Amino acid sequence: MASHEGAIGVNPNQYEEPMMKIPTMHIPGVSDTTDDTRTPFPLDQWYVAALGKELTDKPLARTLLCNKVVMFRDGEGKAFALEDRCCHRALPLSSGTVEACGIRCGYHGMLYNGQGQCLEVPGQDMVPPRAKVKKYHVEEKDSIIWIWFGRDEAAAPSCAPPDYTVHSSGDYIWDGSAFHYEAPYQLIHDNLLDLSHLGYVHLKTIGGDAKTHMNAEMKVKAEAKSVRVVRHMLNSAPPPTYTAAYPFKGLIDRWQEIEFYPSHLRIWTGAVDAGSEDINNPSRGGFHMRGFHGVTPETESTAHYIWTIATNPESNEEEVLKKVVDQTAMTFDEDKVVIEDQYANMLSFGEAPLVSIHVDAGANRARRIIDTLRTVAN
Amino acid sequence: MASHEGAIGVNPNQYEEPMMKIPTMHIPGVSDTTDDTRTPFPLDQWYVAALGKELTDKPLARTLLCNKVVMFRDGEGKAFALEDRCCHRALPLSSGTVEACGIRCGYHGMLYNGQGQCLEVPGQDMVPPRAKVKKYHVEEKDSIIWIWFGRDEAAAPSCAPPDYTVHSSGDYIWDGSAFHYEAPYQLIHDNLLDLSHLGYVHLKTIGGDAKTHMNAEMKVKAEAKSVRVVRHMLNSAPPPTYTAAYPFKGLIDRWQEIEFYPSHLRIWTGAVDAGSEDINNPSRGGFHMRGFHGVTPETESTAHYIWTIATNPESNEEEVLKKVVDQTAMTFDEDKVVIEDQYANMLSFGEAPLVSIHVDAGANRARRIIDTLRTVAN
Amino acid sequence: MASHEGAIGVNPNQYEEPMMKIPTMHIPGVSDTTDDTRTPFPLDQWYVAALGKELTDKPLARTLLCNKVVMFRDGEGKAFALEDRCCHRALPLSSGTVEACGIRCGYHGMLYNGQGQCLEVPGQDMVPPRAKVKKYHVEEKDSIIWIWFGRDEAAAPSCAPPDYTVHSSGDYIWDGSAFHYEAPYQLIHDNLLDLSHLGYVHLKTIGGDAKTHMNAEMKVKAEAKSVRVVRHMLNSAPPPTYTAAYPFKGLIDRWQEIEFYPSHLRIWTGAVDAGSEDINNPSRGGFHMRGFHGVTPETESTAHYIWTIATNPESNEEEVLKKVVDQTAMTFDEDKVVIEDQYANMLSFGEAPLVSIHVDAGANRARRIIDTLRTVAN
Repeated sequence: MASHEGAIGVNPNQYEEPMMKIPTMHIPGVSDTTDDTRTPFPLDQWYVAALGKELTDKPLARTLLCNKVVMFRDGEGKAFALEDRCCHRALPLSSGTVEACGIRCGYHGMLYNGQGQCLEVPGQDMVPPRAKVKKYHVEEKDSIIWIWFGRDEAAAPSCAPPDYTVHSSGDYIWDGSAFHYEAPYQLIHDNLLDLSHLGYVHLKTIGGDAKTHMNAEMKVKAEAKSVRVVRHMLNSAPPPTYTAAYPFKGLIDRWQEIEFYPSHLRIWTGAVDAGSEDINNPSRGGFHMRGFHGVTPETESTAHYIWTIATNPESNEEEVLKKVVDQTAMTFDEDKVVIEDQYANMLSFGEAPLVSIHVDAGANRARRIIDTLRTVAN
Repeated sequence: MASHEGAIGVNPNQYEEPMMKIPTMHIPGVSDTTDDTRTPFPLDQWYVAALGKELTDKPLARTLLCNKVVMFRDGEGKAFALEDRCCHRALPLSSGTVEACGIRCGYHGMLYNGQGQCLEVPGQDMVPPRAKVKKYHVEEKDSIIWIWFGRDEAAAPSCAPPDYTVHSSGDYIWDGSAFHYEAPYQLIHDNLLDLSHLGYVHLKTIGGDAKTHMNAEMKVKAEAKSVRVVRHMLNSAPPPTYTAAYPFKGLIDRWQEIEFYPSHLRIWTGAVDAGSEDINNPSRGGFHMRGFHGVTPETESTAHYIWTIATNPESNEEEVLKKVVDQTAMTFDEDKVVIEDQYANMLSFGEAPLVSIHVDAGANRARRIIDTLRTVAN
Repeated sequence: MASHEGAIGVNPNQYEEPMMKIPTMHIPGVSDTTDDTRTPFPLDQWYVAALGKELTDKPLARTLLCNKVVMFRDGEGKAFALEDRCCHRALPLSSGTVEACGIRCGYHGMLYNGQGQCLEVPGQDMVPPRAKVKKYHVEEKDSIIWIWFGRDEAAAPSCAPPDYTVHSSGDYIWDGSAFHYEAPYQLIHDNLLDLSHLGYVHLKTIGGDAKTHMNAEMKVKAEAKSVRVVRHMLNSAPPPTYTAAYPFKGLIDRWQEIEFYPSHLRIWTGAVDAGSEDINNPSRGGFHMRGFHGVTPETESTAHYIWTIATNPESNEEEVLKKVVDQTAMTFDEDKVVIEDQYANMLSFGEAPLVSIHVDAGANRARRIIDTLRTVAN
């Protein structure tokens, strides 16, 4: 399996994750702190601010990495992001209205362009030069609105936002949504990198048999800023979402390929009829679900989860897409309950030791990456 | 225009309010603090505690300047105000019942008179001398319940409460209500002293054309403890509330006369058919709305807004009054949303610079008056 | 009256409780603090954790004395209590499922037995030795689940839990429920030890005439760890609950016998037709209500109130029991409002002096007992 050379094979009989210490997450009220040398989030990178479809003719207010931001499109459809506060009386600009050349405050009508410069003070000929608000760098690419957060607020982005051609290649149909979690962003990383929870949490949708999940063959490979986890479950029973969306004949060979990046995860899951093709073949057939999972901190203790799911129906495209999207949303609703209960419980118990098990290998590597990127002098 | 001699003419082409610095408000969590030399609110003055009609045969609980107060009428209809806490087990007296000679606690039945003295401990012949609660000085005048807050809690009021003859002269019919704001009291002053927001916030009721408002001729005159702002909008289109209440023929000459006092504002608005009479004439005809706006801090970060609106219908008195009151309530509901969003946003952003514009002239003068009155040694 | 020898007769004409100082309660935000020498609650004793009927085939989560606990029954019906936190990812175990040999976490399926030892890590042959959670000592006795909290967490209980044979003797039929109060536990003691409030708070159910209550003959007797208050109201009118449940002919002789213990109170109330029998006779007839009132701190500022009410119907057993239970629940709903309003008001006013009256005698003795038991070196 050439693509996994150098991967760490995780032995399910090994009773603890082989590190000395579970890498610490930044969980406000529970563990870790920020100081002069460490930020609560990795900086100097793009984050997912919104799905393109969320920006209509109304302003969109969203707090991102503790910044209250208003997003809107100008008359030509270009996306902008400003500090969500009028510099006159501090009303959120998102309470105002979008015009062709910018956004107008809903209190006394001050008008700002996409650079944050005030263009008009109604009833006053001159615009005070100090009348401006902070602007953020945003770019729309593959139907995703990306926003840059740098250590130096004045500096321009040092790279382009990531590509995500699943949205734009035409090979898939897709849709998605923005969820909000009352939990720190790293708990979502943990959840997505350890899909063994499917057999306990998601029995109604993509679960399948718990033992199959816990005993799946797992390969983990970490790079400086990414982690890849591949799990294969051969000869297993198809879960409800799979049988609803695809005409499987019986047992299936099922794969889960998870790629973690500091700003998002890509999860490619699917299955073929058991024994019918090699699921290591990149151009294999069968049923495919490709998930995009933007995990953007809202604050240190809350997060946005901005996701899409893409699939490749053989027929009844709209009907299959609707099924896949609805069942994915149900699945994430279940995760939301678990993750929010988990964080509330961590807050109740405070800092208390936890035990790692073998399925944590990928998640622990991702924690280490975030840990490194949060260090200011990296 | 004799009545405005000495007024500061505000030039709409001037691009910033001509002071070096915007006067600071006391906005908890955002700006300014209190200390030994400064109180959060002006003291040694009367505040509006309630409308007379709010005091029925039930106790009325209201927190005023951080004091939890219970108000009630005795058997002769006289209004009283006590500390809202039984001295036995600390239950709010407002959970009890009103009797002819006072108020009885709803837990074990202790009875207090309007001076706060316990008159009866059920089942016990003697009343402990220490059994008493704090009383407040209140006076009912022109259908308004006024309460005195002094620096020296034991001292009696040093003056009588203000008159408000609009309620008692018989020239108007009126009604009103008590609103509650999750925002500091001074943000309500700001809102009422700058009526240029009508064209953006109140289009459904008293708004009218935004440009007309922003370009209105404005005169501002400040005294030691009051500010007067007069705005004239000649030849303008009547807004919905005006046409609903009065048979205007077409365009109107419209006035707004705003008087600010530390405890309340009086806003006289109205209009005549354009060109039909001089709107500087105190006995002019046309359509009149006279607003009384009691702005009483509940706590440092919340406020009561106790208002009445009076009008002078030519016919259909009840119907016109109902329209004017309903539309005024709708208007204040809109202000409440704006002011609460504004304060929440100020809390999110913390202390951050703001820019003044020409319409702020009256509001900034009022801020300076409050600023002075909050100083203990004034 | 042999059973009350040595009792303190409380003179209703005496105008203050005869102690120098009202014993302090531990009311967070208002009075008293904990430190190295004092705990917020008495320890080294059993508390009421639940009614036996609350433990079904689902886990029961409850915070007790600031400990988040999950309770469940094993396959043989035995009750257990564990720390409510999986040692892997900190999810509450109460979000999981009960199995014959223990409780399984709902995230990744770790299974724990009633001792808190992890028995199984799905997909992993070995269970890490550190994989365990804290267990609590619980015992089910007379249909009550008791839990032990000791100063030394590792030590076993030093005594058996209390008996409550009213539940098991067969002389009564009974039912009950668990209520939750947003108020510290000692305010519930106060409420239950001073039944003079019935005439003001509970007029709809067990109240009766206020003057009768306040003038009842009262005897108070205190031991090291208990208080007994007996009140007799002869020739009084029966309250609504009494007439609904029993065919009284007219006026009644009514008794209230209240026993306070640090973990719970027992309140025996009832009545006979006036003058028909001696209400000091332990085997008297008439209408009886025997209340069990488990008062268990949830946190320092909130409490569980786990109660049962037993009665002795002459006929229509189910119908009378339903009436008695429903009216008791209504009564406690009224107390909940009063006690929560009282605590909220105490928080608003902070530490401020209160006055004792004669009906406080029993409650003040109970406060002194709790005060002593909270001292570490007792």
